[in-house]
Amino acid sequence: MTKKIGGQSIQFENPVRVLSTASVVGPKEAEGPLAARFDVKLTDILAGEKTWEKAESAIVKQALTLAIRKAGLETSQIEYLLTGDLLNQDAGSNFGVKDLQIPFFGLFGACSTMGESMSLGAMLIDGGFAEYVLVGASSHFCASEKQFRFPLDLGTQRAPTASWTVTGDGCAVLGRSDEKNGTGTVITAVTTGKIVDMGVKDINNMGAAMAPAAASTMAAHFKDFGRGPEYYDLIATGDLGYVGRDLLVKLMEEEGYQLGSRYTDCGILIFDREKQDTDAGGSGCGCSAVTFAGDFYSRLQSGELKKILFIPTGALMSPTTTQQGENIPGIAHAVVLESGAL
Amino acid sequence: MTKKIGGQSIQFENPVRVLSTASVVGPKEAEGPLAARFDVKLTDILAGEKTWEKAESAIVKQALTLAIRKAGLETSQIEYLLTGDLLNQDAGSNFGVKDLQIPFFGLFGACSTMGESMSLGAMLIDGGFAEYVLVGASSHFCASEKQFRFPLDLGTQRAPTASWTVTGDGCAVLGRSDEKNGTGTVITAVTTGKIVDMGVKDINNMGAAMAPAAASTMAAHFKDFGRGPEYYDLIATGDLGYVGRDLLVKLMEEEGYQLGSRYTDCGILIFDREKQDTDAGGSGCGCSAVTFAGDFYSRLQSGELKKILFIPTGALMSPTTTQQGENIPGIAHAVVLESGAL
Repeated sequence: MTKKIGGQSIQFENPVRVLSTASVVGPKEAEGPLAARFDVKLTDILAGEKTWEKAESAIVKQALTLAIRKAGLETSQIEYLLTGDLLNQDAGSNFGVKDLQIPFFGLFGACSTMGESMSLGAMLIDGGFAEYVLVGASSHFCASEKQFRFPLDLGTQRAPTASWTVTGDGCAVLGRSDEKNGTGTVITAVTTGKIVDMGVKDINNMGAAMAPAAASTMAAHFKDFGRGPEYYDLIATGDLGYVGRDLLVKLMEEEGYQLGSRYTDCGILIFDREKQDTDAGGSGCGCSAVTFAGDFYSRLQSGELKKILFIPTGALMSPTTTQQGENIPGIAHAVVLESGAL
Repeated sequence: MTKKIGGQSIQFENPVRVLSTASVVGPKEAEGPLAARFDVKLTDILAGEKTWEKAESAIVKQALTLAIRKAGLETSQIEYLLTGDLLNQDAGSNFGVKDLQIPFFGLFGACSTMGESMSLGAMLIDGGFAEYVLVGASSHFCASEKQFRFPLDLGTQRAPTASWTVTGDGCAVLGRSDEKNGTGTVITAVTTGKIVDMGVKDINNMGAAMAPAAASTMAAHFKDFGRGPEYYDLIATGDLGYVGRDLLVKLMEEEGYQLGSRYTDCGILIFDREKQDTDAGGSGCGCSAVTFAGDFYSRLQSGELKKILFIPTGALMSPTTTQQGENIPGIAHAVVLESGAL
């Protein structure tokens, strides 16, 4: 007997509680529309370190440590840590978490990583393998630009379809739902994505590369549970940005679903496109991670939001595969969060 | 109530059955001592592809497809796929698995990935989230040398402490233990590693970088279960090689454990050091993955081995972190496999 619903989804038997979240963001995110929601707003994109990669690791460590403290726990009480990032060999995560000394599963799901870490983390809790699990994802604008695109010093012209990698780490402590009474936020279900490759090759248009994967997971979710968009107060993809959002709306219309105004994208929420010159919107593992940890979680906790469908989206290319003429496959993982009496 | 044993381990309530394994290896591995154990032995290290990276993805796809067939299943019956590799952004995995259309969790645990995928896969089965899960790990000698060390064409002199990255993919289909009767192989427990950083910086001596992590996980495993090395017929680390093996034996002696002749390392088993000029031994995610899938599994199935402790080991550096003066942290994940009546 499994907890499987339909083809790709899990309904948790014991809804998994989100005990706390933490968000640490860079200076640009700290000037954006969600600024007031973030725990730590860095004024220095190097976070006091000598390199961008070390800065990302410092941000990871700061956010994870803060989430543990906000949950009222000691680091030694966290039984598993699942996190990932965009850097080669997950360097942002590995060097960010090593001092915490928590049993560690490193993930790579590109910008879908927050969905992947929340999904697996929730399964570890519901499956009875742990009382407390820490999940997260991070990215760093400068480290990403250097690795995936061009050295920043070149001052390369950006394409209008290009997105802006978020500097930040968003994370959450998950726990068993019987840990505390009262109200709160729980993960009630997840839908795990398959890789979708629609032949997109333009590395300056990640939104187009990822939208089909978001549509695939979202449609699978609705079919698995026999529900439509109207079940949710808010549906948010990870980092499709303006271009990918419009494409997703069309793809879902073709599937017979009208997303309407309840649908948005974290890459649209996090920056002010006009004032911040961020073209197609925010992106990176950190984009959906900090938007969830900072904005969505507080709105769930306050009761403003009751049911959200959170779908971080990832583009699974590397500079090497792109140079070798490969397409940019996408993946998206959906997480259902509900708030109220527990 | 959790299934947690001690600080870092899980004892499964419903032992997770290994329904099949598959191994695809490159030409050098096909000339080594374990050759007869592998399912597919390539004569072309490019696997008919134009690049080493594409070759790795082709190997991944071939191995995963074969494991599903050997389990007597259709691809559509596999509910989750967890795999990873060494390439930037897990490119070997992402492009190898995309056509299979299985809900996918990408992992990065460097050469510990087979331990990570088996641990999480077993939890997904025992937790009731799936009937069938596919787990694996891969690496490719040429793609790794190019990415982590020097272009092969340079003909750079190798250090005696350097290891030889295995070309291959090892994978397994995991299922619920009540699926079939008779005898078989089950995963009964796992111990999840913490990152250990002992200050090693020599990228030509991965064995020394990973041995402390292997010792940490192995000692935690023995303490968690109140057992010693004598409980097992075979204890095998992933890719410490000769240098790391000797160091691990000493580290475990300091912890009060005599590993004796039951202990070996997959990096030692897979190549003939004298005839194959492989210096410190085999390494890479594929090393432990194909040694388990090819050699250990058949010896468990035949009853020659009854209880093994399998500990894939990973070095969590990237070329960027090494160039920035960072240490090489290690991690190791232990999996207990037992055979007999189910």
